[in-house]
Amino acid sequence: MGGDVGLPVTVPAAVQIARQYPDTHFLLTGVPEQIEQALRQANPGDLSRFEIVPASEVVAMDDPVEVALRRKKDSSMRVGVNLVKEKRADALVSAGNTGALMAISRYVLKTMEGIDRPAIATAIPNQKGGATTMLDLGANVDCSAQHLLEFAIMGVALCEAIDNIQKPTVGLLNIGEEAIKGNEVVKEASALLHCSGLNFYGNVEGDDIFKGTTNIVVCDGFVGNVVLKSLEGLAKMIGTMLKQEFTRNYLTMAAGMVARPVLNRFRDRVDNRNYNGAALLGLRGIVFKSHGSADIFAYTRAIERARGAVVRGLLEKTATAVTQMTQRIDRDNAESTIEQK
Amino acid sequence: MGGDVGLPVTVPAAVQIARQYPDTHFLLTGVPEQIEQALRQANPGDLSRFEIVPASEVVAMDDPVEVALRRKKDSSMRVGVNLVKEKRADALVSAGNTGALMAISRYVLKTMEGIDRPAIATAIPNQKGGATTMLDLGANVDCSAQHLLEFAIMGVALCEAIDNIQKPTVGLLNIGEEAIKGNEVVKEASALLHCSGLNFYGNVEGDDIFKGTTNIVVCDGFVGNVVLKSLEGLAKMIGTMLKQEFTRNYLTMAAGMVARPVLNRFRDRVDNRNYNGAALLGLRGIVFKSHGSADIFAYTRAIERARGAVVRGLLEKTATAVTQMTQRIDRDNAESTIEQK
Repeated sequence: MGGDVGLPVTVPAAVQIARQYPDTHFLLTGVPEQIEQALRQANPGDLSRFEIVPASEVVAMDDPVEVALRRKKDSSMRVGVNLVKEKRADALVSAGNTGALMAISRYVLKTMEGIDRPAIATAIPNQKGGATTMLDLGANVDCSAQHLLEFAIMGVALCEAIDNIQKPTVGLLNIGEEAIKGNEVVKEASALLHCSGLNFYGNVEGDDIFKGTTNIVVCDGFVGNVVLKSLEGLAKMIGTMLKQEFTRNYLTMAAGMVARPVLNRFRDRVDNRNYNGAALLGLRGIVFKSHGSADIFAYTRAIERARGAVVRGLLEKTATAVTQMTQRIDRDNAESTIEQK
Repeated sequence: MGGDVGLPVTVPAAVQIARQYPDTHFLLTGVPEQIEQALRQANPGDLSRFEIVPASEVVAMDDPVEVALRRKKDSSMRVGVNLVKEKRADALVSAGNTGALMAISRYVLKTMEGIDRPAIATAIPNQKGGATTMLDLGANVDCSAQHLLEFAIMGVALCEAIDNIQKPTVGLLNIGEEAIKGNEVVKEASALLHCSGLNFYGNVEGDDIFKGTTNIVVCDGFVGNVVLKSLEGLAKMIGTMLKQEFTRNYLTMAAGMVARPVLNRFRDRVDNRNYNGAALLGLRGIVFKSHGSADIFAYTRAIERARGAVVRGLLEKTATAVTQMTQRIDRDNAESTIEQK
């Protein structure tokens, strides 16, 4: 029910994925009559693949987290998270309010053992033709070095599960000036990552996200959120200006007609709808957040990513990675205790 | 002498500005023979407008700050800062190593009374057709709320002096999630700014930089640097991809020929060379930092901005703003003392 558009996007996207992947079954949470209507319009074929799970309320995009969490206990979002909790669903995909989704998921599902803070990760298209996984994007501000290490571990598991990359490289987002190599937390996180056994590349700068220097870029949620919003702002401005220039007058419109196939190819390459679907990591269940303004195509991508995470065992991969890290730290501590003796 | 290119950029740019503004005189610091040669090639006209001040060393772009500051005491950069200190120059423009320039400027010129930390500010083109002034961009990590307030005060003075805007609006860069409205420092800074008497708009998000929601966007140097580098990375990737698509084959090249006038207009609008020249604020002297990779046109823009700052009294404006703020705080403190009695 959530997102800027709601059912006219989410239901047709589900229908499309059901057609594409015969292994998928959908539990659609929300107001039954409205969902039924959207489903009929979407021409679903085999109706047994879709089950409607009633929910009487909807979390609004501007609802404060407290309202979503405490007062709307029968929201489509909450009912969806409950389904994951009860293992009736393997994953939840929502285009709703990010803060509410994170808060409800965290409250209902709880964090994994060994994870202190869940994080939000997304993929950003890079120059190499792939995508850079970046986290955290706003779930956590005021992070400690240990939190940044956790984000790296979770990012690695995500990258292995979704992008099928073995031992992906990890970069720590930092600033470039020689004088002041990052704040205290980042310096400490760098030291932790160096000893982590992860494929740690070292510090990276903002432009490395697009160079694709590392598979994963780790930063605190304040920085990640601000960077992501800034990038969206720039991309939007560039798109608007390009359009304005090509629609200025008949001459430029004619030029636009001639250039259209090229411009379309360009647009496809920078189209971030391809990478729609941010992962909420570190929870005892799989939750993906679609962009609120996603269209049907973008929403199918978010569902595909969630499906990939289920099929390739994101939760197990994360749990294993966390356990290995904990054992490693215990062993290192034991060794240093022996050395001290 | 500094920057990626050095004299072939800096000297012709100075010559061009000398031609354009009859009130400008240039002190060119560096190796005399090399400067003389560059000057001859640039066809300077009236040579009395150019004076060469010898300096035997050059700060390399990758020199550690300590080396630039302690070991290269006869660098073109250091000699330039000394000229500002001795009031032989009204302003310094350099395309050299940012960290070194800030460290040397701070060491030689000192900070203004009432300013604890100098900051770096730049202008970023926005959708409204103007530019958003953003600071700090990397001079300070681990900032306090008081520092963010200082940045706002300095940003206002810069905006009034360079862009000639009265009572420019100030936004505090923050994240958008309802759950977690920024980290502790940002929350405290918001409270300070609300009582500051500045034209404080409130919190802004990353995309507001491009929407032009406020004239000034304030953030700590870590965030500012990462955002700026990320934006440069995205802009570069978009430019590269657009070029790749138009040069893919004869057909796309033909389309590119037809579309060229439109694409050129577009390029001019998003061309950040127009806004080259970051201001080092809060010092007892005017210092502008050009992008290291600036070409002649971009470098003239940095010189123009520095000239504007001199002509429209940036230092006086900043000093006045700081004094007013200090008096205001003293008065508020006095009032609250009376109330307590």
